[in-house]
Amino acid sequence: MKKEKGQLIVLSGPSGVGKSTVIAELLGQRPDIYFSVSYTTRQPRVGEQDGVNYNFVDRAEFERMIAAQELLEYAEYVNNYYGTSLKVIREKLAAGIDVLLDIEVQGAAKVKDQCPDALSIFIIPPSFEELSRRLHGRNTDSEEVISGRLEKARIEFREIPNYDYLVINDKVSNAVYEIESILTAAQCRVENRSGMLSQFI
Amino acid sequence: MKKEKGQLIVLSGPSGVGKSTVIAELLGQRPDIYFSVSYTTRQPRVGEQDGVNYNFVDRAEFERMIAAQELLEYAEYVNNYYGTSLKVIREKLAAGIDVLLDIEVQGAAKVKDQCPDALSIFIIPPSFEELSRRLHGRNTDSEEVISGRLEKARIEFREIPNYDYLVINDKVSNAVYEIESILTAAQCRVENRSGMLSQFI
Repeated sequence: MKKEKGQLIVLSGPSGVGKSTVIAELLGQRPDIYFSVSYTTRQPRVGEQDGVNYNFVDRAEFERMIAAQELLEYAEYVNNYYGTSLKVIREKLAAGIDVLLDIEVQGAAKVKDQCPDALSIFIIPPSFEELSRRLHGRNTDSEEVISGRLEKARIEFREIPNYDYLVINDKVSNAVYEIESILTAAQCRVENRSGMLSQFI
Repeated sequence: MKKEKGQLIVLSGPSGVGKSTVIAELLGQRPDIYFSVSYTTRQPRVGEQDGVNYNFVDRAEFERMIAAQELLEYAEYVNNYYGTSLKVIREKLAAGIDVLLDIEVQGAAKVKDQCPDALSIFIIPPSFEELSRRLHGRNTDSEEVISGRLEKARIEFREIPNYDYLVINDKVSNAVYEIESILTAAQCRVENRSGMLSQFI
């Protein structure tokens, strides 16, 4: 079924919730979705690739993008910039392609302001204790960094009521199933099927 | 995942669109959904069972139910009454059970007025010509009755913009997949997961 316009999807969730795994699985099942790779000034983690996980840039370049208004949104988070480029997203949506953004709560709020039709989804762990376990199990961060991430998670959770959907990542396949359902349902909304409707009324 | 409250689902669609088949398939895959059997004064069609497809009653009994305010909604359609009993629906929703109503457009509008949280879904055929083919293929109605149903369908289609979702029954499995996605997405809405959310904020 040809899409009438692309759907902008905003995905947020605390560090350690398993968002990257959920996104990888989702994109595997829905290769038609364009994943917008964010820009960041933070250092790559082990295994992360430039242009795949993030576009890694330095502060000078990021601040140039801010000044040139090339960003849909950006935010500073644990002393690093994170931001989303606008141009490609616009082109994809206009071509009927769904665009997935992985952004933290400040950025998500800005996107929702500018694009009220965006679907916003927050991914939570089954429990706070499980989030702590996952962060420790990752073995990539110091205890201090982990504490900072857990503290940040508590602050982020307060923004959940501003999101449209809440998905629990108890099991990756469940989380992906819920997100796919959310996307399919959005496509079925009457206002997104006006072309199809026009032959009947 | 334990539901916090039941979801009321309103399903409409013109005669001949294949709604009964879609509902049967949906209930087969989602036996947890309670299908609210409507009351009607029309004659059973070949193969229809009292208490399964409809509760078949005479006009005197239906008018008694109207007077006793036992109905959530009712409407007259092609010279017959159709209506929905209120009591059972209330009990099921309170117990966290989803309730599916198969009602025509007038009744659906009344339910939406009384229960704004209800999900309303309209099922359309792939084309008007296909609807005509399906009605003729059914071999249960005279040409005059079929003409009346097609005319009625045109009038019903005008109400689609008042529905939340539009599902195309090109293939029963596709229609059921879309409806299941709509139900899963509704369950993921932040306001429907407040119990889960309460442990995080």
